[in-house]
Amino acid sequence: MSYSLNELAEFLDARVEGDGGVVVETAASITDAGVGDICYVGNRKYIADLRESSASAFIITEDLIADSPAAAIVVENPRAAYAKVLGLLYPEFQPAAGIEPSAVIAASAKISKSAYIGANVVIEENAIIADDVRIDAGCVVGRDSRIGKSTHLCSNVTIYHGCVIGEYCILHSSTVIGADGFGFEFDQGEWLKIPQVGGVLIGNNVEIGACSAVDRGALNDTLIGDGVKLDNHVQIAHGVQVGQQTIMSRGVGIAGSTRIGKNCIFAGMTGVKDNIEVTDNVTVTAMSMVSKSLSEPGSYSSNTPIDDTRSWRKNSARFRQLDEMARKIRQLEKLIKEKD
Amino acid sequence: MSYSLNELAEFLDARVEGDGGVVVETAASITDAGVGDICYVGNRKYIADLRESSASAFIITEDLIADSPAAAIVVENPRAAYAKVLGLLYPEFQPAAGIEPSAVIAASAKISKSAYIGANVVIEENAIIADDVRIDAGCVVGRDSRIGKSTHLCSNVTIYHGCVIGEYCILHSSTVIGADGFGFEFDQGEWLKIPQVGGVLIGNNVEIGACSAVDRGALNDTLIGDGVKLDNHVQIAHGVQVGQQTIMSRGVGIAGSTRIGKNCIFAGMTGVKDNIEVTDNVTVTAMSMVSKSLSEPGSYSSNTPIDDTRSWRKNSARFRQLDEMARKIRQLEKLIKEKD
Amino acid sequence: MSYSLNELAEFLDARVEGDGGVVVETAASITDAGVGDICYVGNRKYIADLRESSASAFIITEDLIADSPAAAIVVENPRAAYAKVLGLLYPEFQPAAGIEPSAVIAASAKISKSAYIGANVVIEENAIIADDVRIDAGCVVGRDSRIGKSTHLCSNVTIYHGCVIGEYCILHSSTVIGADGFGFEFDQGEWLKIPQVGGVLIGNNVEIGACSAVDRGALNDTLIGDGVKLDNHVQIAHGVQVGQQTIMSRGVGIAGSTRIGKNCIFAGMTGVKDNIEVTDNVTVTAMSMVSKSLSEPGSYSSNTPIDDTRSWRKNSARFRQLDEMARKIRQLEKLIKEKD
Repeated sequence: MSYSLNELAEFLDARVEGDGGVVVETAASITDAGVGDICYVGNRKYIADLRESSASAFIITEDLIADSPAAAIVVENPRAAYAKVLGLLYPEFQPAAGIEPSAVIAASAKISKSAYIGANVVIEENAIIADDVRIDAGCVVGRDSRIGKSTHLCSNVTIYHGCVIGEYCILHSSTVIGADGFGFEFDQGEWLKIPQVGGVLIGNNVEIGACSAVDRGALNDTLIGDGVKLDNHVQIAHGVQVGQQTIMSRGVGIAGSTRIGKNCIFAGMTGVKDNIEVTDNVTVTAMSMVSKSLSEPGSYSSNTPIDDTRSWRKNSARFRQLDEMARKIRQLEKLIKEKD
Repeated sequence: MSYSLNELAEFLDARVEGDGGVVVETAASITDAGVGDICYVGNRKYIADLRESSASAFIITEDLIADSPAAAIVVENPRAAYAKVLGLLYPEFQPAAGIEPSAVIAASAKISKSAYIGANVVIEENAIIADDVRIDAGCVVGRDSRIGKSTHLCSNVTIYHGCVIGEYCILHSSTVIGADGFGFEFDQGEWLKIPQVGGVLIGNNVEIGACSAVDRGALNDTLIGDGVKLDNHVQIAHGVQVGQQTIMSRGVGIAGSTRIGKNCIFAGMTGVKDNIEVTDNVTVTAMSMVSKSLSEPGSYSSNTPIDDTRSWRKNSARFRQLDEMARKIRQLEKLIKEKD
Repeated sequence: MSYSLNELAEFLDARVEGDGGVVVETAASITDAGVGDICYVGNRKYIADLRESSASAFIITEDLIADSPAAAIVVENPRAAYAKVLGLLYPEFQPAAGIEPSAVIAASAKISKSAYIGANVVIEENAIIADDVRIDAGCVVGRDSRIGKSTHLCSNVTIYHGCVIGEYCILHSSTVIGADGFGFEFDQGEWLKIPQVGGVLIGNNVEIGACSAVDRGALNDTLIGDGVKLDNHVQIAHGVQVGQQTIMSRGVGIAGSTRIGKNCIFAGMTGVKDNIEVTDNVTVTAMSMVSKSLSEPGSYSSNTPIDDTRSWRKNSARFRQLDEMARKIRQLEKLIKEKD
């Protein structure tokens, strides 16, 4: 698709600095860009790149106008404006509404006429598929589940029975919603399964990456708030609650019944213990282990720094002597004081 | 479903304290419960909640009878009894036996008349599906594989060729059994694949969560013992052996040819090295790295505690000086002794 | 299949020591082997096992000839030769070329006559499937994607639109290529999605395990070099570049836009930060966190050693005092010096 800068600015409700008639067709990074490209600069750190860029147009902040070598759209948040422009330049493929002949739809399921149901999709009894939903090839939507308006299930997603997915959500491939929570009781020499009779309730505008799993509740529903974004390989265990706009990077795992606040950020491969509470506005850095409730907003970390393996071996071995070392230090302090 | 307390007690082979005619329809947690609910209390810690609960009935231990505000079933392990009661109150959906028309079944496959084969399931040559098996939509069962009596494959599970799944197992969606183990030999500048010609042998009463992977053996089968429970995102590499009733939480990874004993508990996101041995009755706490054989039963851990990021940065940087710190402490001890 | 040692030696372009007429049918490990088995010994460490082995034949290095109790093929790299022999003894199942009737193929897709397209596979518009490709049951290949010659997609793999997979690759089940990268911008109180308009470009001879995810680029393609081997549960984020012959074990995650060199080895469950660079020939040990660029080849580690939980608790608690401990040590040094 191609747009003039004036058209893009109108769409963004922003103003143009320079020639608004310039036409752009593609987006590029500031260093790769050439004729026909638009790029964004959101940070004065890239001012030298901006000056030397060959892009046809830019999306920038007010204070960068003087340094822009070409026409520019001026906004407060260039990356947000850029995201919207990308949506115009690279419109998402939208299959025509309808049900592919190879899909298997239960007689009692209710499918909106404006929904798209892809090849080999299976929709079970009493499932409800709302308007403008897109369900790609190979997905399974279980009994009594509901998929909200304009939600997109990418190929090979599995939704178990009795789950509710909100509106404008995107769920990526191989992701599983509503598998049984991991609940067992050791009884007479073996693990007895605790039936998991809760469901999953996912809000609106939620995105979940590939190969992720949100388990159904043991008794009460697992809850994912509006605007939550989960990356690939994320696990949300039974009965967890995740507050609005919280974001979890790849591989994060939240154990059972833990409550996570709003606007939290969990960096990749972080693990959070079961039955704890993390308040709003908490950030946890990568590969940390959250082993207790966090009641104060702020940034938290665990883990050790990378080192060459030889040094690491020496230092790491000392980890097992830390308590002894601390005690020795105290003894030495005492000894020295006694000498005074 | 609704049951009188007497009916439930008879089912559990337990006695009722109070009015056995009370009818319950649903289960609830002790603090949420109301009329028609049954809940369990297995711990004197919740005695205040028990006293104030509005549930119609309880499952409790002998010593809690005096504190129960309503009729109760008295048992030794209330959580186990509760699990059984849940199975009655919330009976699992059981599709009628038969093969959905969209399933693709090889002529040489043998499918029990009492099995259920869901929509778009693919069963390859010579596979054997035993009595009362349930295979949900989109699953693939490879050549020469066998699925034991009453096992349930949830939607979109993949079983490769030549794998044996025992009886009364549950495998959750997107899980993969029998993918090639990760075996390569560096030869003449590139990685040469070692063909993985073993299989997978899974015992009875095994449950495996969503998005998990049990790889086939390089030469000998990968073995999962009876009663093993694996959560989501668990990895069992080629040639691993997992002993009976061992349980692994979300994200645990066991590397190749390692042998894990019986009755072990691996908390979430723990990694276990290849070619080692972990004896029976070992517990490993969350996010630990098991880098050597563990020959004594007991609890093991690694990792560092969560802290605010600012403090963590300071402390973590010192990790690289640990060996130096330990040496300094020893020098100081020496110096002080010399002064005596 | 059965082969004489002479036949195998000819295939390997190697020589036989002893009776080349010996026939072998199966492979076994040195300690399990019996009549009809061939095994390899690549290390003098196993010399005692070799001497006592009942195998019919061996693949060994020159220096082990004297210790071999039976005929042997003599090569420089026995494990590599063994890999090739396994391919002969256990030939991989090759379905006959053709398209299963239940597959759903878009009219505009181009499928080679020598390709195999399994049951319930979905091939979308304009996809191109090259010669000798094997696509097993339940896979989805998205619009405009290309699968190179002799590549094998195992059951239930998902390839999104606009992705290119090279030749002679193997992708295991539940793996997802081309899901959206995890890119959002916080704007006016919510996370705005950055459309991910790049693709994925995977080289030749790449193997990717089960339940792994290679995300599409935000703008530029995500690149996986020739000969790269990724195990199960591996994540390659948007815009990452992985150099040739690099190998990543189970659960490794590489965050966005990071560039990984050639011939690197990442052990299991290692995490690598976004926007950094790891040079060629770097090895990272298990469960490490690579939080900065690594510009020197070599081996790197982080993490702490396993210990019994009781000791670990004591030592781990001291981690939070490390900076204080280091300062105390310096003070004590000073105090002692002052006393001199």
